[in-house]
Amino acid sequence: MDRLEQTLPLTREGVQAAHVLIKQHVHLTPVLTNTTLSNLASAPQTVEALLGTEWEGRTPARPKIRFWFKCENLQRIGAFKVRGAFHALEQLRQDPATFERLKTSGVVTHSSGNHAQALALAARTFGIPAHIVMPTISTPSKIAATQGYGANVIFSGSTSQEREVVVNDVIARTGAMLIPPYDHPAIILGQGTLCLELQEQVKEMSGHSLNAVIAPCGGGGMLSGVALSCIGTGIRVFGAEPSFQGCDDARRGLLAGERITTVKSLTIADGLRTPLGVHTWNVISDPAKVTAMFAVTEDQIKAAMRLVLERMKVVVEPSAVVGLAAALFNENFRTLIEREGGESGWDLGVVFSGGNTTVEAIGKLFSGQERDVGKVGAQGERVAENVAG
Amino acid sequence: MDRLEQTLPLTREGVQAAHVLIKQHVHLTPVLTNTTLSNLASAPQTVEALLGTEWEGRTPARPKIRFWFKCENLQRIGAFKVRGAFHALEQLRQDPATFERLKTSGVVTHSSGNHAQALALAARTFGIPAHIVMPTISTPSKIAATQGYGANVIFSGSTSQEREVVVNDVIARTGAMLIPPYDHPAIILGQGTLCLELQEQVKEMSGHSLNAVIAPCGGGGMLSGVALSCIGTGIRVFGAEPSFQGCDDARRGLLAGERITTVKSLTIADGLRTPLGVHTWNVISDPAKVTAMFAVTEDQIKAAMRLVLERMKVVVEPSAVVGLAAALFNENFRTLIEREGGESGWDLGVVFSGGNTTVEAIGKLFSGQERDVGKVGAQGERVAENVAG
Repeated sequence: MDRLEQTLPLTREGVQAAHVLIKQHVHLTPVLTNTTLSNLASAPQTVEALLGTEWEGRTPARPKIRFWFKCENLQRIGAFKVRGAFHALEQLRQDPATFERLKTSGVVTHSSGNHAQALALAARTFGIPAHIVMPTISTPSKIAATQGYGANVIFSGSTSQEREVVVNDVIARTGAMLIPPYDHPAIILGQGTLCLELQEQVKEMSGHSLNAVIAPCGGGGMLSGVALSCIGTGIRVFGAEPSFQGCDDARRGLLAGERITTVKSLTIADGLRTPLGVHTWNVISDPAKVTAMFAVTEDQIKAAMRLVLERMKVVVEPSAVVGLAAALFNENFRTLIEREGGESGWDLGVVFSGGNTTVEAIGKLFSGQERDVGKVGAQGERVAENVAG
Repeated sequence: MDRLEQTLPLTREGVQAAHVLIKQHVHLTPVLTNTTLSNLASAPQTVEALLGTEWEGRTPARPKIRFWFKCENLQRIGAFKVRGAFHALEQLRQDPATFERLKTSGVVTHSSGNHAQALALAARTFGIPAHIVMPTISTPSKIAATQGYGANVIFSGSTSQEREVVVNDVIARTGAMLIPPYDHPAIILGQGTLCLELQEQVKEMSGHSLNAVIAPCGGGGMLSGVALSCIGTGIRVFGAEPSFQGCDDARRGLLAGERITTVKSLTIADGLRTPLGVHTWNVISDPAKVTAMFAVTEDQIKAAMRLVLERMKVVVEPSAVVGLAAALFNENFRTLIEREGGESGWDLGVVFSGGNTTVEAIGKLFSGQERDVGKVGAQGERVAENVAG
């Protein structure tokens, strides 16, 4: 992928070119609106007030915050990650000799999350073997799903060092090419395509443009791509992170003026337990591209997830609603919207990044048992470090 | 409502007329397709095989069973029940003197379920007071939601006798008009409108007509309406019920040649714990209108619900997936489809009736705790009899 790292332009045009390449492989996911949630967001809120029912009777004239939800939970493999994976392989395909070699040597990545399934699906589509390094502590359903797409799953420990050893071993043994989960221009440009679609869909549905968009941020591949897709459009871009156990590394890095390179958090938003990479830091730390980062608590993430499941009737994973949680609960973000939106308010794009959860996980999350996992982490064992992606 | 009982025609034209009246009050809910589920249904299945992952790799040419899901879980108040409630009030509105009187005396019904919220919303829309009789054992969230729509909630015991006493007391005290949950022509015709939409939507999306439609059956109001909407179209109509504790009263009644008038079942499909009424029995027992009824187990309902949540990423309540469960698991229905569908297979409309559940209820359902409720029922206490609707 090194050649691509040098040549792919991190621009809106780069995202547009990526979209042309991957369109045939991905769903044009729907954009949903929801009057109840827009009304809720447009009144001052606390978690307690939101989950009460007093709001049922209210019917504000026109909500000040009008949500446009980009539903990548309805994407293939249940998450936006297929966009980056297909784009990386489509880019490699531009060089027929390399691509032919991949059909023997394969591709490799490390991921316990949606990138694993995304790369497995993309590789299978092109007849390329995929080696996926997953921590032994990964949930059996994710391992099975990745194997279900025909990938060769190889187990490792859960620290980044342990994973790297196994990945390097695979590369030495097979000659496979590493497709990283987020910190690569091809991945960033691929993920950004979701926001090109969102921009067009909102224009079609409402006749006007978005004022802003907010997206979850883990390794920052998707948020970076979203930011690139908005260059020159006048759309403001915001990122959202969980604050739990310092998972808001991007926000803290911006405050410190320096990228934070390690995250050890067991936030329920398990797709976001990752620090920014070099490329994604360069995009996200540029105030012309990303206006601000906001952090939300675990309870706020759960409250947002409950609202989406119970009111919108759509299944999302915890990581997917971190942007919505910021729009509902983060006082700094809400003050900013009120100030900038003025009388007419804002049309706010909100990225739902994925929907890969299980009925058991939903049950655990809302029965309070999830905290037990946190306890295990606090004892220094089974701490998942950078394993998501 | 007695006047309406005499005059409303139980025909496809009656459903069409109802649609004209209620269109402005209800959502045109989306029709979704899902390749994964259609592929799953098109291979011989057991619950165990379905929940495995072996199928991931399969890509059959053209599935024999092609599902078209009518998503009434995305309807206002989260269920199809608003259709009947708005239709009943719109019919009463045709007589201005009666309607004016209702604005003082109000309407009344008994329901612990979606009909309660539906009537509360419809009544509020017209400025009519709504009195809703609910069993004291109703879940607090349903009581709060009904009150949230401005209804006056009155508590009763959970047997039909206890409820009737309270309803009659409300009528004596206020002069309110009874709007029954299902066994009335106005309600039946209103519910049937969902299937008119489904027929048109499938034609638009695919260019051809449905072969058949399957819908859940509790009191039978919706299934009856669906059946009326299909008269003369060539579309076969099927109903599905839970078999648990004899909840398949319609199917058993057809076998016995006589309507079964009592159901005491604590099936997880709590919207279907109701026997057929007189009007709905007349429609459903007519083989020219409903071809057959099928029953499914609790485990089959749970398996179908899991698939819809985890694969389609859409939230449904247990009652909503009883039709899908029959299409996936009921051997008689599957044999019939194979025989009738032949080489080209079937386009099968499946009604998702509602999505009113909570994250806690989902958690309970899939942690096995739900069975405890059944035990309480078996001891003869808290048996919910006909309280749904």
